[in-house]
Amino acid sequence: MKPLTYIIAFALLLTASSSSLPQRRRDSAPAVTYSAQLTAELNQLQQAALASDYAYRQLAHLTDSIGPRLSGSPQAEAAVDYVANEMRRLGCDVKLEKLMVPHWVRGDETGSLTKYPGQASGTTQKIFLTALGGSVATAGEGINAEVVVVNNFEELKALGRDKVAGKIVLFNAHYDRQMEAQGHGGEAYGQAVIYRGGGASAAARLGAVAALNRSAGGAEFRLAHTGALRYADDAPKIPAASVTAEDGDLIARLAARGPVRMQLLLTPKQLPDAVSYNVIADLKGSEHPEQVIIVSGHLDSWDLGTGAIDDGAGVVVAMQTLQLIKQLRLHPKRTIRFIAWMNEENGTVGGSTYAKDYEAEIPNHFAAIESDRGAGHPLGFEVTAKPEVLPLLTPMSAVLQSSGAGLLKLATDTETDISFLATAGVPAFGLWQDTRTYFDYHHTAADTLDKVVPRELAENAAAMSVLAYTLANLEQPLPR
Amino acid sequence: MKPLTYIIAFALLLTASSSSLPQRRRDSAPAVTYSAQLTAELNQLQQAALASDYAYRQLAHLTDSIGPRLSGSPQAEAAVDYVANEMRRLGCDVKLEKLMVPHWVRGDETGSLTKYPGQASGTTQKIFLTALGGSVATAGEGINAEVVVVNNFEELKALGRDKVAGKIVLFNAHYDRQMEAQGHGGEAYGQAVIYRGGGASAAARLGAVAALNRSAGGAEFRLAHTGALRYADDAPKIPAASVTAEDGDLIARLAARGPVRMQLLLTPKQLPDAVSYNVIADLKGSEHPEQVIIVSGHLDSWDLGTGAIDDGAGVVVAMQTLQLIKQLRLHPKRTIRFIAWMNEENGTVGGSTYAKDYEAEIPNHFAAIESDRGAGHPLGFEVTAKPEVLPLLTPMSAVLQSSGAGLLKLATDTETDISFLATAGVPAFGLWQDTRTYFDYHHTAADTLDKVVPRELAENAAAMSVLAYTLANLEQPLPR
Repeated sequence: MKPLTYIIAFALLLTASSSSLPQRRRDSAPAVTYSAQLTAELNQLQQAALASDYAYRQLAHLTDSIGPRLSGSPQAEAAVDYVANEMRRLGCDVKLEKLMVPHWVRGDETGSLTKYPGQASGTTQKIFLTALGGSVATAGEGINAEVVVVNNFEELKALGRDKVAGKIVLFNAHYDRQMEAQGHGGEAYGQAVIYRGGGASAAARLGAVAALNRSAGGAEFRLAHTGALRYADDAPKIPAASVTAEDGDLIARLAARGPVRMQLLLTPKQLPDAVSYNVIADLKGSEHPEQVIIVSGHLDSWDLGTGAIDDGAGVVVAMQTLQLIKQLRLHPKRTIRFIAWMNEENGTVGGSTYAKDYEAEIPNHFAAIESDRGAGHPLGFEVTAKPEVLPLLTPMSAVLQSSGAGLLKLATDTETDISFLATAGVPAFGLWQDTRTYFDYHHTAADTLDKVVPRELAENAAAMSVLAYTLANLEQPLPR
Repeated sequence: MKPLTYIIAFALLLTASSSSLPQRRRDSAPAVTYSAQLTAELNQLQQAALASDYAYRQLAHLTDSIGPRLSGSPQAEAAVDYVANEMRRLGCDVKLEKLMVPHWVRGDETGSLTKYPGQASGTTQKIFLTALGGSVATAGEGINAEVVVVNNFEELKALGRDKVAGKIVLFNAHYDRQMEAQGHGGEAYGQAVIYRGGGASAAARLGAVAALNRSAGGAEFRLAHTGALRYADDAPKIPAASVTAEDGDLIARLAARGPVRMQLLLTPKQLPDAVSYNVIADLKGSEHPEQVIIVSGHLDSWDLGTGAIDDGAGVVVAMQTLQLIKQLRLHPKRTIRFIAWMNEENGTVGGSTYAKDYEAEIPNHFAAIESDRGAGHPLGFEVTAKPEVLPLLTPMSAVLQSSGAGLLKLATDTETDISFLATAGVPAFGLWQDTRTYFDYHHTAADTLDKVVPRELAENAAAMSVLAYTLANLEQPLPR
């Protein structure tokens, strides 16, 4: 499907150019121009990024050699050390910001149907599933209970305590693959993921003994999707897991014909919170060193795959931003601050702690950039800021247009780690990638290096570098 | 991708119509015509098949309620009972043909890299794999050895005993997805699967302690593909497993940078051969009851998924052939014999035993039909017979053309179970499906009911019914 990427991006670009690019803006807003030197430097950065395999090599190390990096794991700590050392090697000022992160460890996880319509003597049906991050374990030898299937919270409520108490509830809400195919995977994910996040407590309030949700993703390859759940304070904590799309269908079909019982074993452990770190590396500004532009991704990942697209890719394009500026001997006027956030996946301790630790310096945070939607071809940026920010960046978009990343779109929310800064008024930029396959892979065992196309990763590095360097050298302040 | 199916089938049809359909054949061969009654009955069969959900309901029972049906398993025996009873219920003469089948049972299967370049202290990398059918177990706590990666047998040979003895050999041959996308999945599979079949013995001859092969399929979702291996008589039996495409890549990338060691545990068991059966059900011919047309699929499946496309689909379209003829109260002149073959996957005992048991009656086997390439939209049939057979079937193809299944193509080999009859001279017909996704799913955990589109399954039932009934009523003998 990759060639289509370019066609669609190009089509979007043509559509967008009539409304948001400089030639039309002249009527209503004064044209912003950059110095010839800045424009030349932006082009230099872009071309150097596209020609470089630095980001890909960093990503190969994070995924192949270090592997999954769930908060509190030895791999997460190895990744902190590795990235910090690499940024020191590049000549940056490195600081480790201490955090206390949740430390959840996956255990055994098995499921099987033990009673169902048409069952043959002496047989069971295996169910493919994976525990949700933060789930409590099943007691003893596991749970054996009848499964009730609902498609949404309303159906659960309609069943009521009489039909739910003592049962396992399966939320079988379907991920909308057609929405994903049209570039709205985020919205499709948002619709499906509410049952992963809140299903367990909703079911527990009605007396359920465990909760299952259909995997919140587009894969149809018996692939289970993990992710964080949130236990509400007013409900008992019950074990929770995602079943694959196929197993959601299987249980739903059987349950429509008669009672289905399931044996469920989950043995994860919630260990005491662990010490971990945001890795912060500064490349000091020459004129306004106190003013900061953040470039970032999150270093932690789920534990099933190796965290290539979620979010090793974001970390390495942010690393490359500083690497390129050093390599090209450029001197940004403001400080460009690299951050590898910790614990985006199951607690967001990294992002929230930074916003607290640096509260007094928020006014000096000129802007924050994060990439956390994979490594697909970038279309541009989603901008969570005042609309007046956009025209200041049109000459930058014109540079990125040549690699298909020239779009700027206003958005009401931004990437998780920088959302704490955005809430405090810092203009926030999320890299806007083609995500048509992202939600098939992220949070699964198939989030691996091979899903990243080197050229597309380089395009992302180009986009982040060019935006960061523009912001670091902009004459005007950003309206906020 | 489904809508494309129709476009491509239609394109093929247009191409084919200039060379193989009746209007052009008139120049060189006399036109064959069927009686008005036969033509009407063929249309009736086709329309009834397209309107029916019988095949799909049978498939739902085989997969959802009975599940995986590996030879010797309780599920395989339950399937034999179920299908035999269903065929009796339809009013057919049912016979169980006794077989002794291999009885291999999957055990635990885990792999991890324990030493590799860039490894972080105290960490390993998990490897996703599945034992090959027939593999011996690893001894004791498993094998820990260095992995050597080769892309083909030539590279293995070039390494020689010095570099292979004591090691685990990974055959990392890539499945050709582009070949698959163009409708040649069978050829792509054929290229890749030789390492699954013969890799273990080739490696063992050079002293390897275990063999791995990259999964022989198109999936990129960390999905391992099982299937039979063949131990050669002249080599030690060593444990063998398929790793996922992602893990093949991972090991190959790491091994290119330095030594990689792997811990491998496989605990399958080869139990004594078990009693099982081909299920044979006859619908007697009114004029030539001794002459037989076989309609068939294989009832056994691999154990990871539920055997929907490989080959529950084949069995149920063959079941529906007899069900429709009964329902429409049609009376074929020759006998139509349903066979649900046992043990296609790991021994082909069903097909080979039938050819022996019925050796004396081979001349009365007018033709044999099998469906064993899934449940995708059928394009027509691959015909393993004399070319003179084709023009006798052009009026039949004209009927099937309206559901897009009007193609006939000569082929040098046919489906496994009926290949024993084909070798003995029986004209053989393989249903020719769109297989562009078949090789992504078959032999994996994702071979499940949801992969079958009910309409396409009905199209397959229409094709098999119409061909079988044509053959049962043909005026002419088939050249052989």
